[in-house]
Amino acid sequence: MTEYTVLGKRLPRVDAQDKATGRAMYSGDISLPNMLYGKVLRSPYAHAKIRKLDVSKAKALKGVMAVITAEDVPEQKEKSSPKSPRLAREKVLYAGQPIAAVAAINLDIAVEAVSLIEVDYEELPPVMDAFEAMKPDAVLIFPDVYTNLQVLGQTGKTAAPSNITWQVEIGSGDIEAGFKGAYVVLENIFHTQAVHQGYLEPRSALAAVDPRRKVTIWTDSHGAFGVRDVCADFLNIPISHIKVMPVEVGGSFGAKQFHPLAPIAALLALKTGRPVKIVMTREEDFVATSPAPASIITLKMGVDKEGNITAAAVSVVCDIGAFNRQVGDSLGSTIQELSLYRIPNLSIKVFNVITNKAPTGPYRAPNAADAAFAVESQMDLLARALQMDPIDFRLKNAVAEGDRVITNPPFSRIGFTEALLKMKDYLNRRDKPEGKNRGTGIACGLWPAFGGACSAQVNVTPDGSVTLLIGSLDLTGTRTSLAQIVAEEFGIAFDLVTVVTGDTDAAPYSEVSAGSKITRQMGIAVRRACQDAKDQLARQAAPLLKVEPTDFSFTHGNVQVNGMPEKSVSLSTLVRNSIGRFGSGPITGRGSVGVHPTAPIFVVQMADVEVDKETGKVKILSYAAAQDVGFAINPSLIEGQIQGAVAQGIGRTLMEEYVFQNGIMQNPNLLDYRIPTAADLPFIDTMLIEVGSGIEPFGARAVGEPPMIPTLAAVANAIHSATGVRLKELPMTPEAVLKTIQAE
Amino acid sequence: MTEYTVLGKRLPRVDAQDKATGRAMYSGDISLPNMLYGKVLRSPYAHAKIRKLDVSKAKALKGVMAVITAEDVPEQKEKSSPKSPRLAREKVLYAGQPIAAVAAINLDIAVEAVSLIEVDYEELPPVMDAFEAMKPDAVLIFPDVYTNLQVLGQTGKTAAPSNITWQVEIGSGDIEAGFKGAYVVLENIFHTQAVHQGYLEPRSALAAVDPRRKVTIWTDSHGAFGVRDVCADFLNIPISHIKVMPVEVGGSFGAKQFHPLAPIAALLALKTGRPVKIVMTREEDFVATSPAPASIITLKMGVDKEGNITAAAVSVVCDIGAFNRQVGDSLGSTIQELSLYRIPNLSIKVFNVITNKAPTGPYRAPNAADAAFAVESQMDLLARALQMDPIDFRLKNAVAEGDRVITNPPFSRIGFTEALLKMKDYLNRRDKPEGKNRGTGIACGLWPAFGGACSAQVNVTPDGSVTLLIGSLDLTGTRTSLAQIVAEEFGIAFDLVTVVTGDTDAAPYSEVSAGSKITRQMGIAVRRACQDAKDQLARQAAPLLKVEPTDFSFTHGNVQVNGMPEKSVSLSTLVRNSIGRFGSGPITGRGSVGVHPTAPIFVVQMADVEVDKETGKVKILSYAAAQDVGFAINPSLIEGQIQGAVAQGIGRTLMEEYVFQNGIMQNPNLLDYRIPTAADLPFIDTMLIEVGSGIEPFGARAVGEPPMIPTLAAVANAIHSATGVRLKELPMTPEAVLKTIQAE
Repeated sequence: MTEYTVLGKRLPRVDAQDKATGRAMYSGDISLPNMLYGKVLRSPYAHAKIRKLDVSKAKALKGVMAVITAEDVPEQKEKSSPKSPRLAREKVLYAGQPIAAVAAINLDIAVEAVSLIEVDYEELPPVMDAFEAMKPDAVLIFPDVYTNLQVLGQTGKTAAPSNITWQVEIGSGDIEAGFKGAYVVLENIFHTQAVHQGYLEPRSALAAVDPRRKVTIWTDSHGAFGVRDVCADFLNIPISHIKVMPVEVGGSFGAKQFHPLAPIAALLALKTGRPVKIVMTREEDFVATSPAPASIITLKMGVDKEGNITAAAVSVVCDIGAFNRQVGDSLGSTIQELSLYRIPNLSIKVFNVITNKAPTGPYRAPNAADAAFAVESQMDLLARALQMDPIDFRLKNAVAEGDRVITNPPFSRIGFTEALLKMKDYLNRRDKPEGKNRGTGIACGLWPAFGGACSAQVNVTPDGSVTLLIGSLDLTGTRTSLAQIVAEEFGIAFDLVTVVTGDTDAAPYSEVSAGSKITRQMGIAVRRACQDAKDQLARQAAPLLKVEPTDFSFTHGNVQVNGMPEKSVSLSTLVRNSIGRFGSGPITGRGSVGVHPTAPIFVVQMADVEVDKETGKVKILSYAAAQDVGFAINPSLIEGQIQGAVAQGIGRTLMEEYVFQNGIMQNPNLLDYRIPTAADLPFIDTMLIEVGSGIEPFGARAVGEPPMIPTLAAVANAIHSATGVRLKELPMTPEAVLKTIQAE
Repeated sequence: MTEYTVLGKRLPRVDAQDKATGRAMYSGDISLPNMLYGKVLRSPYAHAKIRKLDVSKAKALKGVMAVITAEDVPEQKEKSSPKSPRLAREKVLYAGQPIAAVAAINLDIAVEAVSLIEVDYEELPPVMDAFEAMKPDAVLIFPDVYTNLQVLGQTGKTAAPSNITWQVEIGSGDIEAGFKGAYVVLENIFHTQAVHQGYLEPRSALAAVDPRRKVTIWTDSHGAFGVRDVCADFLNIPISHIKVMPVEVGGSFGAKQFHPLAPIAALLALKTGRPVKIVMTREEDFVATSPAPASIITLKMGVDKEGNITAAAVSVVCDIGAFNRQVGDSLGSTIQELSLYRIPNLSIKVFNVITNKAPTGPYRAPNAADAAFAVESQMDLLARALQMDPIDFRLKNAVAEGDRVITNPPFSRIGFTEALLKMKDYLNRRDKPEGKNRGTGIACGLWPAFGGACSAQVNVTPDGSVTLLIGSLDLTGTRTSLAQIVAEEFGIAFDLVTVVTGDTDAAPYSEVSAGSKITRQMGIAVRRACQDAKDQLARQAAPLLKVEPTDFSFTHGNVQVNGMPEKSVSLSTLVRNSIGRFGSGPITGRGSVGVHPTAPIFVVQMADVEVDKETGKVKILSYAAAQDVGFAINPSLIEGQIQGAVAQGIGRTLMEEYVFQNGIMQNPNLLDYRIPTAADLPFIDTMLIEVGSGIEPFGARAVGEPPMIPTLAAVANAIHSATGVRLKELPMTPEAVLKTIQAE
């Protein structure tokens, strides 16, 4: 095993002090001279025709500098980005949809102006239930949308329009034979709910325009280059006419890949020539952003007497909301979670269905927690039916290196069995939850992680420190892990590395900070940039120390001849020479990476719960999460990711949901839409397993999304263990639990 | 001659609109939340002992957050930077020297606090005249400074302390024989005056401290990395603990290489933990910055009957002010101006003398205008004595390729003769100034220009545009000329290039924007960065177009097979591919340059004047400047530089001066210290001569400093032509002209 000096260490986040002291700057914190305040008029109806839209009174109000409607949005050259807002033109399709926007000299006037916009609506029946929406006689949300069909290799469109935008069916083996050969076959329907991603910072955007009509944008996105592309598309201007500034992001968990405000703020800024800031209220943020979708998953699985899975057939109905723009992949995630196990005969059907709800967006391992809720609940039921230990049942069916599922490539080196065994050992060692109405559940998850092009630049400074310039935003501590990589590469102290997040003009391109990719993908680009600079330093050191440029190590701030600590020269000296009278110029390095291969991640989690049978309230007594992280570049940061993901999973399991009445959300605030607080959460124990992926950087695997996947099922399985009843719908509120107990 | 698409074009400055609309941000424009206001206590005496310094009353004033004196300045590891302020400890050495500084919640309180600081001074006689200061019985400013001697190859120190800090003597040939063989020998003493560099923006600095004690600085310097080094030295912290932000610079002309405020603001920010801003008043800026030095130049020259110069002996006394820290080079500049001509026998003596005036600093071609004033006035007098045409006399003696002077290398390809002939032609063609008291003068100048390490990074954007990231600040239009180089390299439109000036953390190292170096030195780094990126683009294009990566041209936004316009692929496509699924990652390029060789620049200028013999007032009727620019990357920007330099030269010639009484400046304001306005200036005609230097980039020579050099002498020669009297002292105010006329 390689000995590292800085990698693998529990170093504090470089942004910790700024965040703890309130000094970190978010887009909403920024104000510019002469700034206007924007406000968006949103539909109060889930489904309605707009008979008339009259903005004249709003425009006439003193202090109003601009009012825009769909008429003011330039025509896009190509199909407009699904990540930009759609100002309603003839119809509104969900309550919260933007219709118009105002820029005024202060927020009070902007709010008043919005209230002066006259809209004459003709209400239409809202389509709120995905099952209902699929029916041939359902109200059609779009009269001209036909189902995109991909059934067993055949592609086509339906003859009649439909609310089903996409219908796909794939399979392998012989599904009928698979079930025929089974000893136990179980079929269950699981319901997951739409949830808000639960970020703390409401959506916010500030746009300014310079005299040459170049637009500068500060917004809460985690992909500055994506904001640039979406705004350029919305405004129909070249991307080089937009600059997106780096600011801290107050949570996203996938949601902020959509940009409901930045393009509107930019258009208002272009119309007025003045900076325009728009910040959503919490209520707007609930109704007008992009929640994770609800799904209805019908899963049939069979096992033989020995506990081998013989077949699985799943049908997923995913309620994607008002537009065909979901970013998560209900098909891919369903395949993933079924890929936890060797299943010789498989059938997967997925239906994406539009309804009159806010268009949905990605949420930390999009759709995977939904699929795992079904698969891992079902696995628990099958183990019970076979009277097998749930871990042993999974161990028996667990995939291993070389196995392959449908379209996926064969698994490379993976740590699933190791994680299951680690959890088994943990369960055996710990104090079991004794007593009435207490129980334990386990569940697993699998995530492929994704790649993305990234680039990095390093500058070696005359004092031997190094600065790293990147364009990726930091959600999870990536500045810290990348600083560790730089420090390790140059053999310098961690605090001699400064990581700079540049704007989209200054920094090289980087894909959005999503898909758990930055430490891994950017990490490769960073290593290449370091190597580029190190090669130059070694070429300068070689004549000084009279050895070949390949004979060096970088350690303790020096370039040192391998095996000869007494023969060395400091980075500082080399850099000072380089910019001195006879030097060849400043030492900088660049590194880029394309969409680099990724390694799958396996997680196993367990929950101990206690259920109050009087009230239905579930208390999580303890929780543990095992994860194959490949190599832990910073164990503390990874543990934080795991603990945060489990906390979010517990929220989705026990409390969070959108409550609608006639298409209108009834609980758009943090009192009525409860997310877990510290009081709701147990200590979340973590176990990091390091089965090196064999892939750069350093064999590290993705960490941010995978621990989100199994929590729903782990808690459901624990409730079953505690009470004997099976919850198949989310959230498992006290009311729902009580109702299920009473129904048995 | 190479055909260029973007180079050589008169493109508008990229910062023109920002500057014209007032949108450009200067350090004084920036305010931060919680910011304090700093004020400096300055000595009212030119020379005094400090018997007692008591800040207790200032500290006790409500709203005062910190008071610092020399006691609070950390001890520097090495000899402190001559570019940082020196808080007086036991003595004050010039009126305006900082003694203490205050940070308070508003400026009024800061000013009051400064007035509450009690200083008990013991006045000493100020040493204000350099000739007096050289005398053995002069008052000694430092009791422990001895003269650094470098006399004809011998080095040493004087036995007794002295106000002369440096005495140097060099020569070539046989000076006595040279004068003996002369037909005419003239000796004259020329006096140049100290002048303010005349920048519009008073000195300003803002410093902030983050929770990790990292200091961020916004200041009016043109060398961000230099500010970093000077502040780190002053504060005795590593340079990586300082970040200097790029802001626009409201003129410098050399002065702002010194940092009288930034280190003080940084120390106050560290003491208080809050941002601290200090902006000088105009009066402070006159008394407490670093004017160009005054010199007394005694020049003896001989010529033979044919007009060949036989010998020159010069003695320069340079009044460098209160510290031994002058950045300009009185010796080097004197050598330069004598290097205009073949002089077989040469003797040069230089004395740097300290006085109780503000320490001097560089001013556009430091010391060269002073030397040229003497040399070119003397050349005019010699031509008159020989009854030769002043241009023919210069043509006869002008240096050419291969000539060498003392320590300098032989001249490379130069355009001096071309410039003289161009001016001769101009003088013949134009309408001569007829009438009484009118006359014409010409003068020449030579400047070597300087190199400096620089680095650049380019990013090629998915729309085929390019961004350039540099760390050098733009005083003269360098963002524009560098953007032209990038556009030419990539074969894209000028407005598809964005130039970003990064802070010292984000941008690669660059030397201070001085020495007329950025377009030339950074231009090389930029070309290398472009080539790095172009090589990658060509490697990507090669398999697509089935040719070798070396077979491409970059034109019209495409990578095109040489000679086959139909075989091409757009930059946009290549970049989109590179960040796409099968790409190798974003396309970026880096380029660095060390201290690159430079090429000398020759200038010839002429003035037509009319002198009012009643009042002594000199009116410049017309002015023309010819300059060998090598290759004009942007003729408009070069013409602007020439016109600006001549305007400054006219100011120094006719009006600007520091008036002292008992060591105190009497005219520290823009009413009493007149700099020229548009009403004082003629149209300044320009002639660009392009004798390619043979040196990268594109044979371009330095342009910013050289046109500053001959103006003083050109006007003096014109006055002589108009009136028959010779002005040998600057400035040639109406009073001085009248006095000289009356004395004849």
